[in-house]
Parts: sequence; C-alpha cells; structure tokens
Amino acid sequence: MDYQAGMPIDPIVFETMKPYFTENFGNPSSLHYLSQPVKEALTNARQKIAELINAETPKKEIIFTSGGTESINMAIKGAALRNKNEGNHIITSSIEHMATLNSCKSLMKEGFNITFLPVDEHGIVDIESLKEAITDKTILISIMYANNEIGTIEPIKEIGEIAGDKKIYFHTDAVAAAGKIPIDVQEENIGLMTLSSNDIYGPKGVGALYVNKRVKVTPIIHGGGQERGLRSGTENIPGIVGFGKAAELAKENMEDEIKHTTELRDMLIKNILGKIERAYLTGHLVKRMPNNASFRFDGIEGESIVLKLSQKGIVASTGSACASQTLEPSHVLRATGLSHVEAHGSLLLTLSKWNTVEDVNYLLEEVPKIVSGLREISPLWQMIVQGVDLESKMQEWMEGMKEEEHHHHHDENSL
Amino acid sequence: MDYQAGMPIDPIVFETMKPYFTENFGNPSSLHYLSQPVKEALTNARQKIAELINAETPKKEIIFTSGGTESINMAIKGAALRNKNEGNHIITSSIEHMATLNSCKSLMKEGFNITFLPVDEHGIVDIESLKEAITDKTILISIMYANNEIGTIEPIKEIGEIAGDKKIYFHTDAVAAAGKIPIDVQEENIGLMTLSSNDIYGPKGVGALYVNKRVKVTPIIHGGGQERGLRSGTENIPGIVGFGKAAELAKENMEDEIKHTTELRDMLIKNILGKIERAYLTGHLVKRMPNNASFRFDGIEGESIVLKLSQKGIVASTGSACASQTLEPSHVLRATGLSHVEAHGSLLLTLSKWNTVEDVNYLLEEVPKIVSGLREISPLWQMIVQGVDLESKMQEWMEGMKEEEHHHHHDENSL
Repeated sequence: MDYQAGMPIDPIVFETMKPYFTENFGNPSSLHYLSQPVKEALTNARQKIAELINAETPKKEIIFTSGGTESINMAIKGAALRNKNEGNHIITSSIEHMATLNSCKSLMKEGFNITFLPVDEHGIVDIESLKEAITDKTILISIMYANNEIGTIEPIKEIGEIAGDKKIYFHTDAVAAAGKIPIDVQEENIGLMTLSSNDIYGPKGVGALYVNKRVKVTPIIHGGGQERGLRSGTENIPGIVGFGKAAELAKENMEDEIKHTTELRDMLIKNILGKIERAYLTGHLVKRMPNNASFRFDGIEGESIVLKLSQKGIVASTGSACASQTLEPSHVLRATGLSHVEAHGSLLLTLSKWNTVEDVNYLLEEVPKIVSGLREISPLWQMIVQGVDLESKMQEWMEGMKEEEHHHHHDENSL
Repeated sequence: MDYQAGMPIDPIVFETMKPYFTENFGNPSSLHYLSQPVKEALTNARQKIAELINAETPKKEIIFTSGGTESINMAIKGAALRNKNEGNHIITSSIEHMATLNSCKSLMKEGFNITFLPVDEHGIVDIESLKEAITDKTILISIMYANNEIGTIEPIKEIGEIAGDKKIYFHTDAVAAAGKIPIDVQEENIGLMTLSSNDIYGPKGVGALYVNKRVKVTPIIHGGGQERGLRSGTENIPGIVGFGKAAELAKENMEDEIKHTTELRDMLIKNILGKIERAYLTGHLVKRMPNNASFRFDGIEGESIVLKLSQKGIVASTGSACASQTLEPSHVLRATGLSHVEAHGSLLLTLSKWNTVEDVNYLLEEVPKIVSGLREISPLWQMIVQGVDLESKMQEWMEGMKEEEHHHHHDENSL
C-alpha cells in the first residue's frame, strides 16, 4: 500500500501504448504519412486530459511534460520569470512537494521573495495568513490540491477566488488529487495545474501542465518549439498516449474507485486507531483523499515499521518517496506541529483500485504485531510507559539528531 | 528513410522494458522490497550508457533526463548559470540543433554573450574562428558531435583540446552520433555530452547527460533530489531500462551497422548524383555519419519531394524534424552558404539497420521520377533550363519570402 511512490501501469493503458512503440513510431512534426496517426494520438490524449479536469481548450491549455516535477518547475519558474516585471513575491505553503519548495528556493537566488504559509494541525493552509501575505508584489500563489503524505485536501476554490480577485496567478500541484477526486479548473479558478501520469495508473516519465489560456509563462526547456513553444523536445508519444488513456479511465472509474478506496481507508483508520494504543491519524479526518491512510505511532520509527512490513510482503512508506533516503523526518508532519521525534514515527499507506479487503485485513493483522514488537525493544517506548517526562529527553535527542542531519545534508550542486 | 525524426523501438529493447511497466514498478527511493530490482536496473542502465561512451564513473557521470532537448538545456544553462561568476561568454556554432540555439538565446536575456561560429560549405566548424572567439570571459563551448541534417562530423577531439587548454567547459550534442560511431569522452576531452535514447532504437522520452566528474552544473529541474540532485523527478524506470538496453545493443552492433548503413548510404549518394542532373550532396563526403545521405535539387522544393515519396510509401525529410512545420528553410543549409531558394530544395535520408538494399533500390527508382515530375511543373526549373540569370529573380523572391516568413514567425512566448 505504497501507491503514492510507484504504481503498476493499468494493463489496458499498456495495451493502448504498445502500438506506439513499435508501429506508430512517427514524429508528429514530419511531413510524411507516418506523422498522421501520432498527430491524432496526441490530440486525443490532450482531449482526455482536458476532459478529466474540465479544461476549456485542450489544444491551448494542456502542455505535456516529462512528469509532475517538471510541470511544477515550469509552472513556478515559468510564471515567475515571465512576470517578474510585475513583482517578485511568491506565496506557497510549508507542506508542498519538494519540487515546489526547491523551485521556489531556486528563485530566491534570482531575487524573488517567497512566503511559506503555515498550516494547521491537520495540514490545512491558513486562509487568513494567505490574505495577509499578499502584497502588490505578489505574482504567484502555489498551493497543492491535496497533500501526498497526509492526504489533506486544501481549500482550492477559496484560494482560487482570492487569487482571482487580486489578479495573481494561481498554480496548484494536483499530482496527488487529479484523476482521484473531481477537479474542475474553471469552477475552481485554477490558472495552472500540475498532473502526473504514473499517479493514475499511467506510465512514468510523462505529466502535464494545465495552463489557462489567459496565463502567460516562459518555457524552461527551449528547442524545436513543440507544445506551442512552451515545452520543446520530441514528444514522448507512447507515454502521452498512455497518460491519455489513464485519464480517460480515471474519469470513467472515479466514482467506483472513490467508493472502494474510501471503504478500505476507513477500515484501516478505524482498526489501526482502535487496535493500537498511542496510534494517531495524521492529516484531516474528513478533508482527506480517499486513498490515503497516514498514521504515527509513539515510541517507534516509521522506517522500522516499513522494513518489517516489507518482510511480510507489504509495501508501505514513511513519508514522501523522494525524501525517504534522507534521515530527515517529513517536513509535512513537522509543519503540522509534530516534534522531530513524533514525526519519525509515521506510516503512510496509499490505496489503489487493486487493493482488496483481504489486503487490508492482512495488514491489520500484521501492523499491531510489528508495532508491539518494535516497542518492546524501543528505549523511547519504555520511557513513555514508565511515565518519564520526555520533554527534556527529546530536546537532547533532537540536538543530537540535528547534528547528524547536518553531516548528511544533501548539497544538490556538489558533484 | 527518416530515422532521424522517429525510430521504431528495437523489439529486444521493448521486451527488456516490459516487466518494468507491469511487475517491477517500484520507486528506487522506497525502503521496501519493491525498490531493489529498480535500483539495480537503474545502476545497470547507467553502466551501459557509460560503457558506450567510455565514461569513467557511471554513478557520478551519467544523469538521466527526459531526452536530448532537456539534456542540451541542462548542459548549456546549467553550466552557464553555475559558472556565471567566471564569465558570461558562450561559443557555439550556427548549425546546432534548435535546443542549443534557443538555450543560448534564452541566456542572452540573462546577460550572456553568445558567439555563433561560422561553418564551411560542408558544415565543418571553423577552428581558427573558434580560437579567435575565445576570450577570458568564455566559460562554455557547445559544438555538436555530428549534424542531424547533413551528417557532418565535427573535429570534436581538436575542439576538446582547445577547450581543455583554456580550462573552458566543452559540451557536445551527440544525439546524431552517440551509439552510431565510436565516441570516447575521455580520449576526446569531452566535459558534457548529450545523448538521446530514441536515436539508437530506444524508447522516446528518455535521454542522458554525461557530466565529467570535474564539471559543475546547476540543475534546471528542482525537486526530490534524484540523479544526485542534478535532475529531480521520479525516475522513468521503463524508459531508462530501455535506453540502457539500446546502448548495450548499439555498442555490440556498431561495427556491423556502420558497415551496413555506409554501404546503403554510398549507393544512395552515387546513384542520386549519377542519375539526376543538378542534384548535389549536402554536407561532407568523408567526414560524414554512416547513416546520413542528404541532398538538394535545383528548381524544386524538398517539401514536395517528401510528400510525393510519402505517396509511394517512402518516408523522408526535408530538414530537421522539429523545424519542418515552419516555412523557413534549414538554418543548417543556410549556414553552409546556400541561398534561401537552394536550401528549400533539400532532401534528407537517414538510414537504420532495418533498411535493405531493396529499400534503397525502390527509392532510387522513385526519386528520379519524382524530381523530373516536379521540375516539369516548376517555373523556377524552366528558368534554369532556359538559362535565365536567376540572381535578380532570386533576390526578388527572397524578399517576398522573407516577408511571408515574418508573418509566420514563431514567438515562443506568445500563448
């Protein structure tokens, strides 16, 4: 139950892609007969993505990219650099994906000021803080549609309205939400929206950026002028075809899938909180993605749970997939007010249409045993049950950990 | 014979990729058991790319991207922005791919000066001009390994030595050459090199940038820190696996393929020049890619030849694939000294291991008929055979065309 990190492709999607690897291998820019089927496939995929999110003008508004990360970079840097004469202030939140946070940080080097909005204990962005943060230099607001770690759904329509009133561009990273819950870019006042194929049973290596036709961005990848000059590079036709099919299926199956995953999610939440003492739900109970069940457990580390589950054939995660190889705890959980030690105890379960009640029951048998086993050998847990005041202890630990973290700190520019 | 624009994937490559769509769908950053096979696959692919070009340290020097265009952008912008404190001058040539030309142009807006070196009539970059262009502000030289339209192979080792002596970074766009002719990045003093998968029978949507371990670049796509922080985004594992297999096969089959395509290429050149009057080879006769046969014909337009060939089931091109939808003639042919009208008469044939002597014979039957047919209805050809002095006529035409071009000029920032 780690579908956030990597999904198998839907067999129907794969079948749809196959001919574009082997038979329809043309280049849509060519003049000869091989270009026609790929041109049509490209148009069709664009149409399906547009229908999924109710974009008005597929041809003008759907830009294919290499994935969610590139789309986020393009939205944020592209909008910022294109509109830098209007202002140099960007507002985002403290629980965004690293692609958003690091795109914003890269813009700080170019003279942009970034406001990282706080969130409440459930991960909801504070609307009052947003309103207060807006200045006449603000040119972009970037808030994710739903959080990938704790599943919290943000008040997107409200943010869209605020941005619209102030004539500020609004980008939402919808990687964790698009195709899983209904989204309407027109109704919700969304100017730019990031989508990823692999998060909806489509292939890896392809994504899209919705760019409302009134929104102007600068390309971040220059070249032959594909995608209306906004994203150059020979089109990844099989990937785009697969993404289009995945979007079509996502729309068709959305209602059923929401029903199915919500049921499994609620089984997980009810039983884990019921069966395990000092287990807590992270994120929001109601404003929550149907496929997300995220927890934390006192006294143990999420990493150990994930490794033990893996031995039992269950895949899970302890936070965002891309950050898992660092020793730092989730910045998302920290932003919801959890301490360093608390955030380390997290377990993220993400569900798909392929999960069954049997899967969930098996996991519900194993997790309590694993948690007990780990707690038996956890000095931290011993202190908790003995009623030791942990505040000063934790303070000591945190300082030790911070030092360790410092040694492992990742310098993205060093070779 | 338009393999430069789009290649079918090698069936062996596709078979190798398949399990990574359906079974091995893990994320290499995850902690559970699904990550192991994809981690290994990633390491193996990196190793195969490194072996193809004799890179010393696969893990540190091979960065996977979404394709040739992104790699070129990353090499040029990444090197320029990282080293802008050392200088703001970049040298490239006038026959580069649009990804190089437009990346350079985008840097001009940020205060960089670009020198576009001239080439001789065969498309060879002028080494003396290169030496003269170097100043103490020069931080990057970017010259393609081989040209994608006229097949000319540039004096890369010599350029690498000049760059090395002056301690200037050297990037070469090897999209048209890597995997087709032997390349040794160490022997040839190459600091940065762009490779594309689809040009060697691998899947679309994946490429690589070789970054010598002493070369420092800034990422252009920020996020979760994949590819050692240089290229964030969930890895396109099936694509990378396919690219790795394609690189392995390219190395194994290189000698045979060079022999095969050279034979077909020379059949094409000999017969087209022999059978058709006022037909000319473009590019260099000897310093030429084995898979490239490019021509121009007086009195007719390349676009018409391509369309007529398409009716006969033959795919061909009249220049770089990405530029074919504009009305402008090839900037490459113009740079070799051809007039606007001459450059419009170009036909590009690119060969693969799958082309046969029968393919070539069929094409050699059709091309002369098509050229004659088109010339019969060409007013320009009538003037040529009647011995009209075309100089003044052409001048008039060119001005008319320039105006038309102006109307069609592509503004990459406009939505």
